[in-house]
Amino acid sequence: MKLKSPYLVKPHAAVRLSRLPTTETGDFETEESAAAVLVKHRSQLNTLQEVFYASEQKALLIVLEGMDTAGKDGTIRHIFSGVNPQGCDVTAFKVPTPLEARHDFLWRAHNAVPPRGMIGIFNRSHYEDVLSPRVHKVISGKVARKRLDNINGFEDMLSDNGVVILKFFLHISHGEQTNRLKARIDTPDKHWKLSEADFHERRFWSSYENAYDDILSATSRKHAPWFVIPSDHKWYRNVAISQIIVDAMQGLKLKYPAPTLDASGIKL
Amino acid sequence: MKLKSPYLVKPHAAVRLSRLPTTETGDFETEESAAAVLVKHRSQLNTLQEVFYASEQKALLIVLEGMDTAGKDGTIRHIFSGVNPQGCDVTAFKVPTPLEARHDFLWRAHNAVPPRGMIGIFNRSHYEDVLSPRVHKVISGKVARKRLDNINGFEDMLSDNGVVILKFFLHISHGEQTNRLKARIDTPDKHWKLSEADFHERRFWSSYENAYDDILSATSRKHAPWFVIPSDHKWYRNVAISQIIVDAMQGLKLKYPAPTLDASGIKL
Repeated sequence: MKLKSPYLVKPHAAVRLSRLPTTETGDFETEESAAAVLVKHRSQLNTLQEVFYASEQKALLIVLEGMDTAGKDGTIRHIFSGVNPQGCDVTAFKVPTPLEARHDFLWRAHNAVPPRGMIGIFNRSHYEDVLSPRVHKVISGKVARKRLDNINGFEDMLSDNGVVILKFFLHISHGEQTNRLKARIDTPDKHWKLSEADFHERRFWSSYENAYDDILSATSRKHAPWFVIPSDHKWYRNVAISQIIVDAMQGLKLKYPAPTLDASGIKL
Repeated sequence: MKLKSPYLVKPHAAVRLSRLPTTETGDFETEESAAAVLVKHRSQLNTLQEVFYASEQKALLIVLEGMDTAGKDGTIRHIFSGVNPQGCDVTAFKVPTPLEARHDFLWRAHNAVPPRGMIGIFNRSHYEDVLSPRVHKVISGKVARKRLDNINGFEDMLSDNGVVILKFFLHISHGEQTNRLKARIDTPDKHWKLSEADFHERRFWSSYENAYDDILSATSRKHAPWFVIPSDHKWYRNVAISQIIVDAMQGLKLKYPAPTLDASGIKL
């Protein structure tokens, strides 16, 4: 799978999020022109997913990470609404349950990895365990580095076993987060999305940025690449991500399985 | 955890099963003397497991591998019959289900790894995927080596996350397998244990031995050691294995958690 994208993090590149764009809109000048392309992508995804499901050759694991309000839920809704839910699972990684907390940090992630034929979307992911615990110094830098190694080994093993991995960091500016939180406050129907934690964690913005820098620098691999997507404009974020997914799925060149019977000979 | 045992496979040692003992009985001259010790071990295990369960500090993963009839079921029955089943899970690895087959080979193993506080016993294990497929050339030597690397990475990650791993290869001679299969044929109550597959696979004895040589040589690590247990004498096999497990659990020096209330102040 060869993937070209200006947002691809090259393996072993040192990433500094503060130097990467959040407002860029690529080749699109208007939201309308991007929307038309997104419609095309959704239709392509629908077709690609059908053969993906039928062939059972590969699994597709899509990881979505980003600061609070970066748009993970919106990305899933806008890109995957047209896909048959029977072939697509979304797993949201929240605070570990008591049972999950008694397991190694990759346990719940591994369990949720899609089987061949399925698309699995991680809304947050196993990267959470090198993020918040790192920011709040629950784990040391040494433990964090070991976990990043563990993650590389894990994703390498998955890739060897038929899992195509695409990881997206939805990159928004601090100012854009401010706008989005304000908008939520101003819209009663969005109050359910507000939590104390968001406002609390926001104070650690630069620590989170540093932790993400470490993640992106350590774990972008040829077979498990990270893409840092400019996400201040939601409409651009959607089309930039859908483009990469469509390209990756087309690149697999999957075919429907050979029929097990000769349909031409059947008379009803 | 420091473990002393004449049966420990030192990390990176080249193992040749054909040169290792199957009939040895260690310090025991009679079955009776060993039986008394096994009774003591069972009692110790019962006590150790209680504090293990209460403390939730560690998980214990016991892997049992060996040729057909090597005694994996018997080992579990004889050693763990005295342990509270609420703190002990046994997972038998059989032919993968259709869903398991659509996942990477470590998926079902990882899912079955015990949480902290629990003892998990693997009756066969993730090592099956570098065994039968290797013997029958379903996978190449290169893929097998990659899988062994994956296993080392997996077990290393588990160990970092509180899982104590003990792996036992129950080593019987070809002649002893002949005797055991004959005994099963002669005992109608044991016919349910007979399968065509056992007799078929038996013809590949030396290929299996080679595959196990590769496994034992590649994956015995300080924190995930293999023990090659002489197992022609069932009574010695049991006591040799229970000794190692008791030693390992004692070595953890676990304590009951501190009470959350002062029991002395309670009046009923």
